[in-house]
Amino acid sequence: MPHIELGNDQPGIRSLFFFRPETAAPLCDLVEVLLRAPSTLQRWERELIATRVSGLNECRYCTTTHAAFACAQLPEDVKLDLVRADVIADPGIVGADILAAPISDKLRALLAIAEAVQRSGRDVTPELVEQARAQGATDVELHDTVLIAAAFCMYNRYVDGLGTIAPEDPENYTKRAEALAQNGYLPIVDAALAHQAAARG
Amino acid sequence: MPHIELGNDQPGIRSLFFFRPETAAPLCDLVEVLLRAPSTLQRWERELIATRVSGLNECRYCTTTHAAFACAQLPEDVKLDLVRADVIADPGIVGADILAAPISDKLRALLAIAEAVQRSGRDVTPELVEQARAQGATDVELHDTVLIAAAFCMYNRYVDGLGTIAPEDPENYTKRAEALAQNGYLPIVDAALAHQAAARG
Repeated sequence: MPHIELGNDQPGIRSLFFFRPETAAPLCDLVEVLLRAPSTLQRWERELIATRVSGLNECRYCTTTHAAFACAQLPEDVKLDLVRADVIADPGIVGADILAAPISDKLRALLAIAEAVQRSGRDVTPELVEQARAQGATDVELHDTVLIAAAFCMYNRYVDGLGTIAPEDPENYTKRAEALAQNGYLPIVDAALAHQAAARG
Repeated sequence: MPHIELGNDQPGIRSLFFFRPETAAPLCDLVEVLLRAPSTLQRWERELIATRVSGLNECRYCTTTHAAFACAQLPEDVKLDLVRADVIADPGIVGADILAAPISDKLRALLAIAEAVQRSGRDVTPELVEQARAQGATDVELHDTVLIAAAFCMYNRYVDGLGTIAPEDPENYTKRAEALAQNGYLPIVDAALAHQAAARG
């Protein structure tokens, strides 16, 4: 049960966006730039970084949500099904699934950096950065990987720190993933503002 | 030394804003809403929450920066000097200073929630929330405390995960605090965009 009276029955971070649209706007702008804007990292690759960090933070809602967003945008030659009841029950297990998938060595090296960031920014070593560079990672890719990992250390704590609801039905996540792949992260902000306006009469 | 070639000699998160203005904008919008916008929590109180979380994450740049921002906006009856060489050397010690200061019982209870969030969102218990409510904390104050703490778990990891520079001279932080108290967090975004435009010629 959420720790505060949110005034809506949305799941996860969506319930917080509806409660406080003022903070929803920058939070959604940030994730849109990081996970959707033009980049040499594919959208599904960036979603996998978000998924892995959320798994390490044991955030059921974010892990399954971004697992679904990654899987909805995979290229044809990558087979990966992460939206499963066992992942919802134990988000930490996505790491093994991701590493077993046919991902690039560059993405593997960036995931290692993301895992360090999840523990502490100070755990990112020159060696980890060198290993990613040796696989072709650019400065912008290194920057974005660190910021994606750091940002999900925020989103995960926000979602769980206020005790929001994480649905247990995988279909709840796959359905939202279709809309996300089509329209991105920004439409929820208008929905949140409309909800606030209606609530205020 | 920073892990990537930032192309500017700004300290801390400022160097990252100059490197990537696209992400600077939502990051600054978020902190402006959380720490500066109208709220029943005073600006210096919100800065102290940011300072405490940054101290727990042992982020020298963010701890000293927000310590300076808090101290620059204190009411007359609260005496607190946190911009010191020993804090820069060991940011974790700010916690004891903050708890020894004449802060309200409500802020004390909110700081306890922020400390839980720093560890994990799942560490926020109904008991911690109840204790804050008993001291008069509202739902919006509880929400904002959790999000401020979560956001600084991001900013701290971003700043240290890319190995940015933290000046060792306290004056560097107090000087910036005067500008912050006056103009807030948004002017840096325009400066970052101007730097990017100039760099691109």
